[in-house]
Amino acid sequence: MGKLLIKGATVITMENHDSVFDGGEIAVEGQNIVSAGPAGSAPEGFDPDRTIDASGMVALPGFVNTHTHAAMTLLRSYADDLPLMKWLEEKIWPLEARLEAEDIYWGTMLCCLEMIRSGTTSFADMYFFMDQVALAVEKAGMRASLSRGMIGVGPEAQQALDYGPEFVGRWHGQAGGRITVRLGPHAPYTCPPDYLKKVIEMAGKLGVGIHIHLAETRTEVEDMLKNYGKTPIQLVESLGLFELPVLAAHCVHLDERDMEILAAKKAIVAHNPESNMKLASGIAPVTALLKAGVAVGLGTDGAASNNNLDMMEEMRSAALLQKVSTMDPLALPSFQALGMATAGGAGAMGLEGQLGLLKKGCKADLILLDAKKPHFFPRNDWMAHIVYAAQSSDVDTVIIDGNVVMEGRKVLTIDEDEVYQQVQSRAERLTK
Amino acid sequence: MGKLLIKGATVITMENHDSVFDGGEIAVEGQNIVSAGPAGSAPEGFDPDRTIDASGMVALPGFVNTHTHAAMTLLRSYADDLPLMKWLEEKIWPLEARLEAEDIYWGTMLCCLEMIRSGTTSFADMYFFMDQVALAVEKAGMRASLSRGMIGVGPEAQQALDYGPEFVGRWHGQAGGRITVRLGPHAPYTCPPDYLKKVIEMAGKLGVGIHIHLAETRTEVEDMLKNYGKTPIQLVESLGLFELPVLAAHCVHLDERDMEILAAKKAIVAHNPESNMKLASGIAPVTALLKAGVAVGLGTDGAASNNNLDMMEEMRSAALLQKVSTMDPLALPSFQALGMATAGGAGAMGLEGQLGLLKKGCKADLILLDAKKPHFFPRNDWMAHIVYAAQSSDVDTVIIDGNVVMEGRKVLTIDEDEVYQQVQSRAERLTK
Repeated sequence: MGKLLIKGATVITMENHDSVFDGGEIAVEGQNIVSAGPAGSAPEGFDPDRTIDASGMVALPGFVNTHTHAAMTLLRSYADDLPLMKWLEEKIWPLEARLEAEDIYWGTMLCCLEMIRSGTTSFADMYFFMDQVALAVEKAGMRASLSRGMIGVGPEAQQALDYGPEFVGRWHGQAGGRITVRLGPHAPYTCPPDYLKKVIEMAGKLGVGIHIHLAETRTEVEDMLKNYGKTPIQLVESLGLFELPVLAAHCVHLDERDMEILAAKKAIVAHNPESNMKLASGIAPVTALLKAGVAVGLGTDGAASNNNLDMMEEMRSAALLQKVSTMDPLALPSFQALGMATAGGAGAMGLEGQLGLLKKGCKADLILLDAKKPHFFPRNDWMAHIVYAAQSSDVDTVIIDGNVVMEGRKVLTIDEDEVYQQVQSRAERLTK
Repeated sequence: MGKLLIKGATVITMENHDSVFDGGEIAVEGQNIVSAGPAGSAPEGFDPDRTIDASGMVALPGFVNTHTHAAMTLLRSYADDLPLMKWLEEKIWPLEARLEAEDIYWGTMLCCLEMIRSGTTSFADMYFFMDQVALAVEKAGMRASLSRGMIGVGPEAQQALDYGPEFVGRWHGQAGGRITVRLGPHAPYTCPPDYLKKVIEMAGKLGVGIHIHLAETRTEVEDMLKNYGKTPIQLVESLGLFELPVLAAHCVHLDERDMEILAAKKAIVAHNPESNMKLASGIAPVTALLKAGVAVGLGTDGAASNNNLDMMEEMRSAALLQKVSTMDPLALPSFQALGMATAGGAGAMGLEGQLGLLKKGCKADLILLDAKKPHFFPRNDWMAHIVYAAQSSDVDTVIIDGNVVMEGRKVLTIDEDEVYQQVQSRAERLTK
């Protein structure tokens, strides 16, 4: 197993607001962090195969993007500033119907390229042609939790159920453990209760978790209340969904009982502030969720509704949006916001306590920022600098599972020009 | 007068959403744009002294930051996540009291460095030691409207009045016309009516406009109503303020009558979404203001409450915040948002119709973005790409008043290392 030593960086371990070590060091062995802290904190006798001089850089955990639809990069800026149903019915769905398997591979590759360049080291994806997604993730060297989006009506319904065990068998725990699988029933409004029960039963048998959209819009909540007399959260609870590990995307419109359920059942909420703002879905009660003890991670959603996959920006938007929506400037302070973008999403990868922190035993998923930028001067408070002033282009080096995948802003695992050519010609075919 | 030709860029003139010309060109003579449009649109016989090959780049007007406190970069990330009055009284004001003239020069230089690197070509500033600000702006090559913040109580009150004519005399119309001056009464809650009347009278005599904070917080509006029986806007209107050109920062808490006044009196509103979010001041009714016919520009406010000076980010936040706060995904669409960040602020520089557009007769303040970035693929809609996906680090080249001030991300007018050393040592003295 390779040994890597990163020296001279300002090391932000994320154990607490003040665990920031100037001129610190991080020791990595194989896929894991051996130590992270001040100079001299590496174990005695640690003999690295490689040493990275990270003077003038800031080291922090890589970002965990807990909800996206990777290949929707192909639809970036294809349709904007439209009402939700017109956007979906007249623009997004017709184009998605023309997507072919290889489109998904290249769309996902563009997503991986963009995410690595902006400091994201792992992501949770829900889309289709998921074998193509897995191949792209494996090649890119990222960590991912992958789910085929399952629609419980029409001919797709049975196909999606059939695909479940196959996809789990082929990819769960593969790529050196970087890829895991969850079943992905799209949402309660696209998956009727009987179908959801089948999915829940299957996930239980396969020993995997669930990735689902819940309570994204007010209309969804109203429809569920009308049709089932229950909120989306309470409906899926009654079906037994929360007996499994659940990654619940959005959770914008919640009542007290919904929040109690999410907390008690240890669900992970994927908060997508920019998508929720752009589609005018609403503002998730993140401050209340955190207070209720719910684990909240951060996500970008797909590029068609964002329109980038920039977790730095998402983190800042999350913090600012909570402050203004609660009219409390103390809401979601910097340490909590950065925590949401890192360790907060660890559970989405099935790695709670082992991801999103720089400390012994955690996965070696970390990033180095180039701190010689005007917005990082003067050196007052690194946590505030990173949450309120940093840019994703400050990311210089990205390490995932102990491997250097970007260095000096050059992504080593992906041929950038090939990706641009592929996605451009495919988008032209799709939109012509 | 030098002649410059920019060739091969995707030219976004901002005349309307679709005035986007791939492989276009821009001709500049001296300080002004001669032509901007498709290939071959430069005047016949235009013989440039210099040609910039901008293939693979996107050209658009430079950003106009309509409200900031430049030298507050020194206080960046010095105090965050605090209640407003505690932040001001215990942190910001005591530190500001220790600022010396030369600190303001270097703090402003850091601001200019950060702004140029993020595509901002002009800004409206309100602070103190304003001669230092003017010197920094002149050196940096930026365009600016400068105002000394005037507090109408205590010993400062008369000093600020005395400084007005001197500062106007020294700097209004200087630096080749790049620097203009407005008087800067801080706000109705710091400048009593009698004092405001003196400022208004002086501005009228000097032939300059006004830069003022108005209706930033709910508390301010409540206090003005209690003390004067009028909203801040209606109070200053009754004093005759709007008979002058007014740049009104914030305007978060407005009633119908306030908006009518701002529209009728042709005030420019400086909207600062991220500062308003971070300090939990509230959400300005931008959509309603625009509907009422008010000219709205965009601003970052000072770095202590943002914490960067990134107009790309500010523009995106503005668009997303209007959508979610009105629950209308059609609110502030991309062309309108980019317009707010560019031409919308032209009036703040006293250059309405001559700034923020790429067309004949406008000032040659423009930027080139490097489009070879993952978040710009595929090439669907440039307007949406720029508003919803771009990063300020995409800015490659910056031209202000016909002069190239940044090229290949290297700022030509400022010694970057000297700025970092100066601000760092000064911040250490201030905060120790």
